[in-house]
Parts: sequence; C-alpha cells; structure tokens
Amino acid sequence: MIRIRFLGTAAARPTVRRNVAGIAVQREGESFLWDCGEGTQRQMMRYGTGFSFNHIFITHAHADHILGLPGLLRTMGLQGREENMTVYGPAGTEGRLREAVRLGARRSPFPVEVRGLESGARVEFEGWAVHAYRADHGVPALGYALVEEVRLGRFDPEAARRLGVPEGPLFGKLHRGEAVVVDGREVAPADVVGPPRRGRKVVYSGDTRPTPDTVEIARGAELLIHEATFGADEVARARETRHSTSAEAALVALRAGVQELVLTHISARYAENPTRLEAGGRKVFPACRVARDGLEIEIGYRDG
Amino acid sequence: MIRIRFLGTAAARPTVRRNVAGIAVQREGESFLWDCGEGTQRQMMRYGTGFSFNHIFITHAHADHILGLPGLLRTMGLQGREENMTVYGPAGTEGRLREAVRLGARRSPFPVEVRGLESGARVEFEGWAVHAYRADHGVPALGYALVEEVRLGRFDPEAARRLGVPEGPLFGKLHRGEAVVVDGREVAPADVVGPPRRGRKVVYSGDTRPTPDTVEIARGAELLIHEATFGADEVARARETRHSTSAEAALVALRAGVQELVLTHISARYAENPTRLEAGGRKVFPACRVARDGLEIEIGYRDG
Repeated sequence: MIRIRFLGTAAARPTVRRNVAGIAVQREGESFLWDCGEGTQRQMMRYGTGFSFNHIFITHAHADHILGLPGLLRTMGLQGREENMTVYGPAGTEGRLREAVRLGARRSPFPVEVRGLESGARVEFEGWAVHAYRADHGVPALGYALVEEVRLGRFDPEAARRLGVPEGPLFGKLHRGEAVVVDGREVAPADVVGPPRRGRKVVYSGDTRPTPDTVEIARGAELLIHEATFGADEVARARETRHSTSAEAALVALRAGVQELVLTHISARYAENPTRLEAGGRKVFPACRVARDGLEIEIGYRDG
Repeated sequence: MIRIRFLGTAAARPTVRRNVAGIAVQREGESFLWDCGEGTQRQMMRYGTGFSFNHIFITHAHADHILGLPGLLRTMGLQGREENMTVYGPAGTEGRLREAVRLGARRSPFPVEVRGLESGARVEFEGWAVHAYRADHGVPALGYALVEEVRLGRFDPEAARRLGVPEGPLFGKLHRGEAVVVDGREVAPADVVGPPRRGRKVVYSGDTRPTPDTVEIARGAELLIHEATFGADEVARARETRHSTSAEAALVALRAGVQELVLTHISARYAENPTRLEAGGRKVFPACRVARDGLEIEIGYRDG
C-alpha cells in the first residue's frame, strides 16, 4: 500500500484550518516527507505518521516549505535518533537548507546530510525511486515522483500444477523468469506467469506554473498532487507569482491521464471554503478534489 | 486590563495538546510576545491574539523558544506590515537570533532589529516597562517582568466639590499633585487624592533553576509564570538540565508572595495529565495551576 498523508495544505502562511506545506508518504513500511513547513512535526504527531524515516525531499527553499526542518530534526534528536537523515533539495539551495538544519540541530546527535538534486536525478530505493524533475517557480524548484519499478507478472499456481511443476522453489524460479525442467519437459515462464505489471506512480508538483514536464512525468500516474494556489479569477496573479490556478492544474492532470488529481497549497483566501477553487478544477478534470489537512489517500495496485 | 494568553506550554518539543513556548501579553491595547517557539504564529491565529505588536522578548536561544520567529516575521511581511519589529534576547544570543530572523525574512519588507539585553536592562513604554533579569539555565538566559509604574492615587470628586473646587481643569491639577486656590483658600492634593497606587507586575521566568533573583523581582507580583518542566520525582534531572520542578517553582512563588502561580514548559511526560505535577506545586503554594494552550488570564487593578 502507498499511503499519502497531507500534513499541511496552505500556501505561504498557515490558517487555523490549514498548516503550511508537508506531505508524509509511506510505501510498504518505508516513509519519507515531501516538504517540511513550520509546524510539520506537530502535524505528524496529530496524524500519527511516526518519525521513523530517513529522507526529506524539499521542492524549493521558500520559508513555508522548509521552516519545519530545524524543529523536526531537533525533536528527532530528543527522541534518541541515531540514524542518518538526508535532506534533498534543488541544486543551489543547499546553503539555505543547511542554515535551516543548523538552526535546530547545531550539535545534532545524528548525522544530517543535505544533498542538492538536479532535474532528472533519481534517489533509488529497493523496487522504487523518487525522481526529481524541474518545476517552474522562478527559483530553483523541483517536483518529485514516487515511481515503482515494473513488477513481475502474476504467477498462476494452478497452471503450474497442471504442467506438473511441484510447489516449492521451482515456482519462484518460474516467477522470476527462468525456465524449469519437469520430468524431462521444459516449462517456460510464459506458460505460468502473466505479463509484467507496471508499478504505481505518485507525483507531487511542488510550487510551480503548469509545465509540460509535469504532464510528461505524471503520465498514467495513480495520483497527481498539484499545487493550486489560486482560483480562476486570479490567473494573472498565478502567472506573476509562478503558481497555478485549479483549472491549470486540472489541465495538467487531463493531459497526463492520471487517475486522480488532488489540489494543495491553497491560498488563505480559499482556505476556509475551497468550493469554488475545487469546481474550477472539476470542470476540466472531474476526478479532482482539494486536499485538507489530515487527508489520507491509499493507493493499492490496480491489477492486484 | 492585562491579558496573558498561553500560546504554547510544552517543554523542548510539542505534543498533540501543547505547542512549544510562547506567551502573548496584552496591556491596555499594547501587546508583545514572550518567546516564540515553532508554530507560534498558528497558535496566535487559533486564539485570536492579532499580529499588531512591535516587540518580541526571547528568554534564551534554545530552539523551542525561537524557531517560530522566521515564520511569524514572514507572515507579518505577507500581511503588508511596515512597522519596525524589535526582537530582544540575552546579550550573547544576537547572532543566533539574527540567523532565525534571516531564515524567514531575508528580504523583509519591514525592519527587524535584534537587541541583546543584559540582566537589569529595562525596555520602557509609557507607564510601564519590561525588566530583564538573569535566569539560571546554563546558557545566556533571562526572565522578564512586566512592571507598571506607580499610578496616581484615587481622586475623590465629592471631597473636591465639598471644598468648593469647580469640576474642570482644577480636578486634573489636584490629581496630578498640584495645589489649587479656590476663593482665596488653598486646596492641597492630599485633601482630595488618595495615596499613590502601585502598578501591576507579571513575571515570566523563562527556562531556569529556581533563583533568588526570581524571588526578588516577583515580590508581590499579581502573577508569576514559572517553568516547571519536571515533577518531584525528577529533581536530579531538573538540576542537571537547569530546569525546575513544580515544587521548586512553588517555593519561589511562596517566597515572593505572589498572588498566583502558573506553571508552564511542561515536559511531554506530564503533558497529557499534569495532575501530579500540579499537585506537587500546590502542596507548597496553593494558588498554583498548570497552564494549558489557549489559557487566558486577565489581571485587573487590585485597588480599582
């Protein structure tokens, strides 16, 4: 299961209902953060995400995306943490990220590494990766995609048994693509294993104008989390401040053919009542909703 | 009216119920902050304290007392603020305070001044002042006292009329201590004005061991806000970490003869259920309670 928990969904400054940017992502027991605005640690406590993760991906170094770093790292230190933490951000923002890290954990009891990422960089995990891609926000800025590797095709144990393959290690060999010999006959993987299944994909735009790069990387994604700071009546302001309107975000989702679009980074103006903003997105792409703090989205495999 | 609003009452790190240190103080329309931990700006929104103030007094530069500065200052900038802000802290912490300020407001649209205070310094306002005094926390640390000037004695308009003084400017003259002449007779201020009335006093200890300095400055205060990070079972730990237990804080209150003691900076261990911690204080000083986030205390004049 991939679990996305929205920790903060406000733009620029918090409101009573919405904290600033932060998303906790959990995939099969491993977790990481996308952005870490002020108060993120307390949102994590409130929503029970836990503190056992080793990677924080920052989209850009604006204050509302990074000011939660020092407090979070300090709290982890007080919790007795010893594992390494890596904080990623766009190349060019390392200095500012280090300032933030140092403010809370000058004598951190655990190592904190800050790593700048270029567009196209991948941070690889076992069976999945986080891809960084260029965003358009007037400062060094990235979006991120959680991308799973292609999974093995579905194994059909009944078919294997019919072909005389005994249950046991030979099942695994076949599933992994090796032919096996049973009673002098070769059984091919294709006889018992379906076609490879694509992995899941979740994309987070960070703060950005709508871009072709986002459409490209989000193609066929289960979930696109796109910023929608403004409604349709503030198109000009969105352009000036390098943000997106909900309709613009929805057009990205439509072009990319994603399954679901969730809008976040909502301006204070719409924070209490995002109906209009949401409607602007739905007109273009119906599978669209506005996130709220605490919203959890679970993403299973489409093909089981 | 003096209004004290507790914005955060946790020690070191927040909990779901308690944010880290922050107290909003309002006196007859003027406001300031004591400490500004992470998330203070959102607590201010939650409890409606408003953002119209020009002074923030930091007790010491530990992360849980300062990490709310950058976000708060940035939000004030987004609100269109133009007035100066002064951030005070113990002499020697100016560098660290400037780092915090700069992290949120590198290009602040309003001037932010950081001023180091020595023990004994006073920041004067009209009719009142904030006094800084030395705390004992192992790092440069201050406590602060809001101290009002002595007020004029109560004016007795009936007595004045009986003495033939016509209502009007002469009333004011007498109240301010000037004798007046009515029909050739002198009326002295003492004939119509009571004795000068002492001003109110509210003391905030910051993080500290119990000290004679706190007893001295809190003498006769309406309210002592004292840290009580630990309960009686952690006396040794309180000593090591330069904090206080609730009983130690209560002894300070007893010696100072304050009207009321409110305990804050509560360790996560007691955060959900501070009954034991509170009981430890009450045994020594009955007019004692543990603060909670959002608690508001109003302090009127004792003698009207």
